[in-house]
Amino acid sequence: MSENGALPRLGKVLTADTMNANVKKVDYAVRGPIVQRAVQIEKELKEGVKKPFEEVIKANIGDAHAMGQRPITFFRQVMALCTYPLLLDDNKFPEDVKNRARRILQSCGGNSIGAYTTSQGIDCVRHDVANYIQRRDGGIPSDPDNIYLTTGASDGIVTILKLLNTGEGRTRTGVMISIPQYPLYSASIAELGAVQVNYYLNEEKCWSLDISELQRSLQAAREHCNPSVLCIINPGNPTGQVQSRQCIEDVIQFAAKENLFLMADEVSNAFFTKGCEFHSFKKVLFEMGPEYSSKVELASFHSTSKCYMGECGFRGGYMEVINMDPEVKAQLTKLVSVRLCPPAPGQALMDLVVNSPQPGEPSHQTFMKERTAILSALAEKAKLTEQILNTVPGISCNPVQGAMYSFPRITLPERSINEAKAKGQAPDMFYCMKLLEETGICLVPGSGFGQREGTYHFRMTILPPTDKLKTLLNKLKEFHQKFTQQYS
Amino acid sequence: MSENGALPRLGKVLTADTMNANVKKVDYAVRGPIVQRAVQIEKELKEGVKKPFEEVIKANIGDAHAMGQRPITFFRQVMALCTYPLLLDDNKFPEDVKNRARRILQSCGGNSIGAYTTSQGIDCVRHDVANYIQRRDGGIPSDPDNIYLTTGASDGIVTILKLLNTGEGRTRTGVMISIPQYPLYSASIAELGAVQVNYYLNEEKCWSLDISELQRSLQAAREHCNPSVLCIINPGNPTGQVQSRQCIEDVIQFAAKENLFLMADEVSNAFFTKGCEFHSFKKVLFEMGPEYSSKVELASFHSTSKCYMGECGFRGGYMEVINMDPEVKAQLTKLVSVRLCPPAPGQALMDLVVNSPQPGEPSHQTFMKERTAILSALAEKAKLTEQILNTVPGISCNPVQGAMYSFPRITLPERSINEAKAKGQAPDMFYCMKLLEETGICLVPGSGFGQREGTYHFRMTILPPTDKLKTLLNKLKEFHQKFTQQYS
Ligand SMILES: Cc1ncc(COP(=O)(O)O)c(C=O)c1O
Ligand SMILES: Cc1ncc(COP(=O)(O)O)c(C=O)c1O
Repeated sequence: MSENGALPRLGKVLTADTMNANVKKVDYAVRGPIVQRAVQIEKELKEGVKKPFEEVIKANIGDAHAMGQRPITFFRQVMALCTYPLLLDDNKFPEDVKNRARRILQSCGGNSIGAYTTSQGIDCVRHDVANYIQRRDGGIPSDPDNIYLTTGASDGIVTILKLLNTGEGRTRTGVMISIPQYPLYSASIAELGAVQVNYYLNEEKCWSLDISELQRSLQAAREHCNPSVLCIINPGNPTGQVQSRQCIEDVIQFAAKENLFLMADEVSNAFFTKGCEFHSFKKVLFEMGPEYSSKVELASFHSTSKCYMGECGFRGGYMEVINMDPEVKAQLTKLVSVRLCPPAPGQALMDLVVNSPQPGEPSHQTFMKERTAILSALAEKAKLTEQILNTVPGISCNPVQGAMYSFPRITLPERSINEAKAKGQAPDMFYCMKLLEETGICLVPGSGFGQREGTYHFRMTILPPTDKLKTLLNKLKEFHQKFTQQYS
Repeated sequence: MSENGALPRLGKVLTADTMNANVKKVDYAVRGPIVQRAVQIEKELKEGVKKPFEEVIKANIGDAHAMGQRPITFFRQVMALCTYPLLLDDNKFPEDVKNRARRILQSCGGNSIGAYTTSQGIDCVRHDVANYIQRRDGGIPSDPDNIYLTTGASDGIVTILKLLNTGEGRTRTGVMISIPQYPLYSASIAELGAVQVNYYLNEEKCWSLDISELQRSLQAAREHCNPSVLCIINPGNPTGQVQSRQCIEDVIQFAAKENLFLMADEVSNAFFTKGCEFHSFKKVLFEMGPEYSSKVELASFHSTSKCYMGECGFRGGYMEVINMDPEVKAQLTKLVSVRLCPPAPGQALMDLVVNSPQPGEPSHQTFMKERTAILSALAEKAKLTEQILNTVPGISCNPVQGAMYSFPRITLPERSINEAKAKGQAPDMFYCMKLLEETGICLVPGSGFGQREGTYHFRMTILPPTDKLKTLLNKLKEFHQKFTQQYS
């Protein structure tokens, strides 16, 4: 109260003008206006509003369960037992399920997944992750002390960017990211006030990564900031490609030469087109010999959200840090302790992913059957997407090699581009919004991920069930033809 | 590779010198050196190293399950069904458990808690939270649009601080926090590079909050920064007190007059000493009439981690924002979408907390029995702690009114203070470390939370089971007497 007892007439404390300006710069297309409109349309449909379609088909986000994929039985059985341990006495559950649950519970405080875990993550889970990495990489050792469990891969990625973020003006940290990129990167860079340094993937060569382009981008950035970290998303999101072993080796050499910290986002390795095997950065680094493996700083990220698991809601993930300065590692451990710990159920689920049923164990057969079914369906849908889209004049689609995304290029008529610009919309946003209104198909415009000036794309996940995906692709084909005619 | 093919001899990219300097300033005592040493001692005991005690008793962290508290059956049953929905066909589970699980699953994408949720949190959970708040506050309305589900309360608190963080030099955001405080605040303020503005709680009056002290602190801060937010932890952590209704009203008046954004950390309301009822800031604000309720900006925080639930590992929480500028709210919604969503199991658990079994439902009786048992044990242990500690010359302990923490003041002999200082240790760190080595009791030194210059404290949770707590208190008594003698 002011002197005379009346409240002073001041405005709000926190307004668009007074708030953190970096937060305002954050963009996040995957959950942007298209998705908000899609949710609205779904409500309208429920309320009986007439539309030229009966349902919204969402291919905007890599969320397998939301698209109807069933969870893996083994995962959920173990998680149920961890949650309600009285079920350990139930004959319904196989012995390997019970053993896994007991082992996880024994490593939790008070044998409860309701206890905080250590901030770096449950000990036995970190050991299992390290063993898994070692198997994955043909025996190259992995140290549990280098494993940090995270709240989804997102959390790990933001944390490492935070550690690297420093300087002002020309000394400000530059973060090299691929264009197109997964917008978590651009958003976090904006939030931290770091500098986004773009390098372009080569669409003509199936979204491959050229060292000359890295070099160009780095040189340009050095004029105005301090580029110190290079992020690679492999398999690609939104682009779905898998980088070759040679490419990874070249990138590591480049990072070593230019003194860049490497961040390898490897969350998406799902299925592999023949000849497009996944190679982890860690493995290639160690195969390059001690000159590299003892020097190059690398953080790599994994998640329970993608691959055949699709367990996004649990927010499980891990990162492995290699060659991190011990003092920095101590700082990292301290930093993650401020938020206490990642969710224990997500940690437990991560454990099951890296320690899945083995031949001879009672759950093995069902697990393999479920896993294989999901992976072959993904492979089939990847092919289908590429094939159908490439029959459409004005759409061209690279093969989807190893993630659940495709990023087809679309040719837009000049008149539609002008109309979009007049509306203050990106031309591919205009396209996707029209597509949504007319067909109920929800995609994300390429502009949300970045693309070469003058090119247009959309990102589409291949997750809808096969028949729905066929419907989607055919509707999309029809729409694109109509749209092209209408604006020609 | 450099021109001649050899790698340049450069040091690491990321070192203690090049890393984010704000991160280096972060301190987090609750998981600091004492706790690290305690973990080490536990390992040594396991390996057979002889110690003057048989086990480490941890009273350093508010982690009920880790201290042996059993989870609430109803919560875990519903969560098990949400995790493994085939159990919905099992006769073992009561109907209300099944109904709750079905309701939660129906509001998840693909009926799976493995799907990403909307970033603000599952719709039906936000509705249930709003209804709960409305009941709690005697009918004052709560809007589900103002509810954000979070990854533990920690996540919500950091997010709001982030929004408020701005400016440079004298315009830098100042964050007013109580001393002693919960170190999440000081850590987040350091990480963001904001200015920590201390106000001292009145230990002599049971850790109450004096407006004159707020005034002093604010005035001093205005000389060098822009204090724009006032954080109140009620019930207190580490101090365990419950602020009176009058005090809360005075604080709100102060915030209105001085144009401060209010953050009310209300995670800890557990049990209530007679005459120390809990009043939510929201309720008091609305009871003060539209002059206040239409103006004062407030964010309040709740969690599944504390109270009778103790479900820390699930990382469930929510915040309610009141009078937030709509543009800022849109920015908040965008910001939380970058990390996709809080863990779905934590959200589901939060739903059960705010929507617990009602009279007449099959789970009601067991639920009430379990809940009451936990709350009365806490009340008993609070009394016990206060009583025993106050019999020790040189220890004085305020009543533990409404959280699971006590923050007793200790008188330390001059010689021990000097010895600590010679070692570069805070005197109460020196004390707690000796206590740990000699008795196995793990507490957190007061210096980790802040305290008036020249005073010394420790924080102790009252969570160990009653008999262990008695052992702890008696060992502590003995140790304090010995320590005092030794250094006198
Ligand atoms: C390339 C990439 N990185 C990181 C993430 C974040 O995954 P999460 O936080 O769910 O583990 C995603 C999710 O789609 C992704 O595609
Ligand atoms: C006062 C206070 N605020 C916030 C938290 C964070 O709780 P969580 O993130 O587990 O919900 C705690 C935990 O101890 C606390 O005591």
